[in-house]
Amino acid sequence: MASPASRFTSAFRIANRRYPALRCATLSRARIGQDHIRSFASSPRWQIRTKEMNDDLLKDLKVNQGRLMEDIHYTCQWGTGERWGDAPTETGMSRLALSDADKAARDWFVQTTEALGCKVTIDAMGNIFAVRPGLRNDKPPTFVGSHLDTQPTGGRYDGILGVTAGVEMLKVFADNWVETEYPVGVVNWTNEEGARFPKSMVSSGVWAGDIPVEDAHNLREVHPGIATMASELKRIGYLGTTPASHEATPMAAHFELHIEQGPLLEMANKKIGVVTGVQAYKWFTVNVTGRDTHTGTTDLKSRADALLTASKMILHSHRLATANSALASTGILNLKPGSTNTVPGLVSFSLDIRAPKDTTVAKMKDLVLRDFPLIASGEDVDGSNHGCTPSLPLTVDIVEDFNSPTTTFHSDCITSVNQAAHHILGPNSHNLVMDMTSGAGHDSVYASKRCPTSMIFVPCREGVSHNPREFCKEVDCALGAQVLLESVVRFDRMRDERRVSWKQEPWTV
Amino acid sequence: MASPASRFTSAFRIANRRYPALRCATLSRARIGQDHIRSFASSPRWQIRTKEMNDDLLKDLKVNQGRLMEDIHYTCQWGTGERWGDAPTETGMSRLALSDADKAARDWFVQTTEALGCKVTIDAMGNIFAVRPGLRNDKPPTFVGSHLDTQPTGGRYDGILGVTAGVEMLKVFADNWVETEYPVGVVNWTNEEGARFPKSMVSSGVWAGDIPVEDAHNLREVHPGIATMASELKRIGYLGTTPASHEATPMAAHFELHIEQGPLLEMANKKIGVVTGVQAYKWFTVNVTGRDTHTGTTDLKSRADALLTASKMILHSHRLATANSALASTGILNLKPGSTNTVPGLVSFSLDIRAPKDTTVAKMKDLVLRDFPLIASGEDVDGSNHGCTPSLPLTVDIVEDFNSPTTTFHSDCITSVNQAAHHILGPNSHNLVMDMTSGAGHDSVYASKRCPTSMIFVPCREGVSHNPREFCKEVDCALGAQVLLESVVRFDRMRDERRVSWKQEPWTV
Repeated sequence: MASPASRFTSAFRIANRRYPALRCATLSRARIGQDHIRSFASSPRWQIRTKEMNDDLLKDLKVNQGRLMEDIHYTCQWGTGERWGDAPTETGMSRLALSDADKAARDWFVQTTEALGCKVTIDAMGNIFAVRPGLRNDKPPTFVGSHLDTQPTGGRYDGILGVTAGVEMLKVFADNWVETEYPVGVVNWTNEEGARFPKSMVSSGVWAGDIPVEDAHNLREVHPGIATMASELKRIGYLGTTPASHEATPMAAHFELHIEQGPLLEMANKKIGVVTGVQAYKWFTVNVTGRDTHTGTTDLKSRADALLTASKMILHSHRLATANSALASTGILNLKPGSTNTVPGLVSFSLDIRAPKDTTVAKMKDLVLRDFPLIASGEDVDGSNHGCTPSLPLTVDIVEDFNSPTTTFHSDCITSVNQAAHHILGPNSHNLVMDMTSGAGHDSVYASKRCPTSMIFVPCREGVSHNPREFCKEVDCALGAQVLLESVVRFDRMRDERRVSWKQEPWTV
Repeated sequence: MASPASRFTSAFRIANRRYPALRCATLSRARIGQDHIRSFASSPRWQIRTKEMNDDLLKDLKVNQGRLMEDIHYTCQWGTGERWGDAPTETGMSRLALSDADKAARDWFVQTTEALGCKVTIDAMGNIFAVRPGLRNDKPPTFVGSHLDTQPTGGRYDGILGVTAGVEMLKVFADNWVETEYPVGVVNWTNEEGARFPKSMVSSGVWAGDIPVEDAHNLREVHPGIATMASELKRIGYLGTTPASHEATPMAAHFELHIEQGPLLEMANKKIGVVTGVQAYKWFTVNVTGRDTHTGTTDLKSRADALLTASKMILHSHRLATANSALASTGILNLKPGSTNTVPGLVSFSLDIRAPKDTTVAKMKDLVLRDFPLIASGEDVDGSNHGCTPSLPLTVDIVEDFNSPTTTFHSDCITSVNQAAHHILGPNSHNLVMDMTSGAGHDSVYASKRCPTSMIFVPCREGVSHNPREFCKEVDCALGAQVLLESVVRFDRMRDERRVSWKQEPWTV
């Protein structure tokens, strides 16, 4: 019997090749050959085990940058968005959750992971779990995951990088005949963006037990549609029979690779962000009610102009955010009746408040609840009426739609990511890796409620995201995928070490 | 042969009855009897002539208040809007131009006026001209007119009162066997509101020669539709073969009864406004371009928030209006991409600027063109940045869509309205009648470019219009209709007096 090292090297040489036909399940199974396919029924022992890999061996477990980029751009054929440059890949994305384009991307994910020997489970929220067996399949898999849906004017990396990097990890494992101690999975979460069905991360939220599945199923697509999540899941064939629950589909850990979506890594010339947690945020809907009147015949003092008042509120929320080192943003605004010569009587807008600390978000909420009614009633709040004509009073109604407290990720996962990043980046790594807090919510927030979790951030150009121009360099995509892969291997190894030394697995649900 | 007075009184007695079946042309013709029907072919001379009416006779030519209200509310079955009270008539209107509901109201107008002996002409803009013959049918008719279309959340009086009062005038003439010296017409103008096809008063604009018919035909309905004016005119059968032109359908005068749509009459306890002109206004579209970015990951200084910037502009336009005794209003605002967690990169909003004087509107335009780009670039304009975080620069693009200079109505028409109002209101009339300028545009603005014009305003509750709660008391509707009727009779009489004394008709086109 050869030593583990030589077995690994040999397997690596044999298997390190491209699988161009992977997009078709039947074909790719044939190409790879049944002997390459891992299965839950039989696990031949001549493959390399993660526990046997030392750091040098780990170094050889290389992500294929070209293949990863090919997958990213190949899947971006479904839901192509606005063009921003001349190159074929210089378009944004518009792949709303559960649309036909999303279905096509999902089909690709199912076929590709099945071709790589995974067992695919679809739950009642359409979450797709692809699991590659390990040695101890009675235990929960170590998952990596993200989402394939995008914003209506989004880019090619947000979510997509995380899922395709997971698929690339499966390919590297297949190439190298890697045998993990525990099963490893890749999950595609449904409607992470909350752009079509207005609750972000809703499906990981159901999985975590924080959102009732009925509420999620009844979510209606944003104006002007009438479809619900349930009707669209059914329509595209992704209403699974497995309950959407951490009990039905347990995870030992959840790792997520994501573009930063902010400018900090780029500004600091860093390559990898080790994400230790996610900032707190709350979403509100603010309804301002005035009175529709004719723009030409109603003098300024006889108006109850809901849009003018909403403008004061939006500006004031920005001032409050400035004063409290928080973020305040309005991304949606609808008004009625919507005619050039009618003063709007009703304006409804979203308010997204974020800060690293729960206490700051709570304070911002208190200030908004105190000040918006004053502004509506016509009082001057911090100069909001400077230069204005006093008008008739309006009313405001503020509803809190969503609350995501500060999330702190798990030290075991953070350690795995940290070690992987420093190992991969070598001697200069201390200049290239930084700990950071995520400004955005991710499915990892809900995952972290039910299993150890961490995230890996890579820089994106000028911090721009939720925009067709969102861009992450190929080398950065690949580096992030490499850190993701190695984090999973390190975590898998750690699980086994603890099993041996502690005689237990703390993460088993 | 009896004296004119007794002939009139007799005719009045015989004909002063209700015509419940008037809504069906065939039936109503039969009810009224062919001998009552005026026609261009024969004009029996035994009817009362307007030139023979002294002020006492004029007093007996009474609008039937109940019948008028019945017509208003009957026609409001087509396009019923939001309910605001418990009574059957306490709902608003939503009758967009050239909709199925508008077609039903048009059909009623055509059938009813034809049943009253009118010749109906439909022009290429779907304007409907119903003309009751007079003695000299080679000369243009004296018209009254308004519109049957409404705002999407409009009321039962704006436009509708003017058209139904015209129909009531025809009924009173028929009841009383009135013989006018010149033909008298009622016109229903198409898409006055500009709510569905975004150019208000577009069809009187084409008639006046100010708007090319092709431009009007190509107007596309507002978001999210795809229909054009031409396609909808054709679809509902109102694309007439007569050119839409003041040459094809000349008018000797245009009188329009309308609710004030403002609070001035009510506040001053007046009953009738004699409208001497219309204030100037301009409509703009303002496009603010920033950058879509994630709300959670983009710090305030790295943003180019198009909605925050638009809010500053809307507020600033209000401040400029306050400082310049003008009006500034935003009734439409659209943004992209429209997601709670994406900072909008693009906002487009309407800006409606009005003032009694052209110079004031021009000054407001200059100030907007000076200040909006400064606000977009991040400069502080009159405290617009107070308490704000400096952000990335944005750009703004401002397009003038529509310009309506100050309109001065014709002294002959103003005199007719003024005399009619004082005659009807009697000795206390000086406390009940006031001259005023219209704040809103009306089809009378375009009519006034091609013929003598004036308007009559009646008070509406709290000045509210373009709102389901828009309300005009029955007695005020009837009083306005009475002034309208008498203004037409007085104008007709004046035309004849001038023909005799001047040997010419100055208004003949």
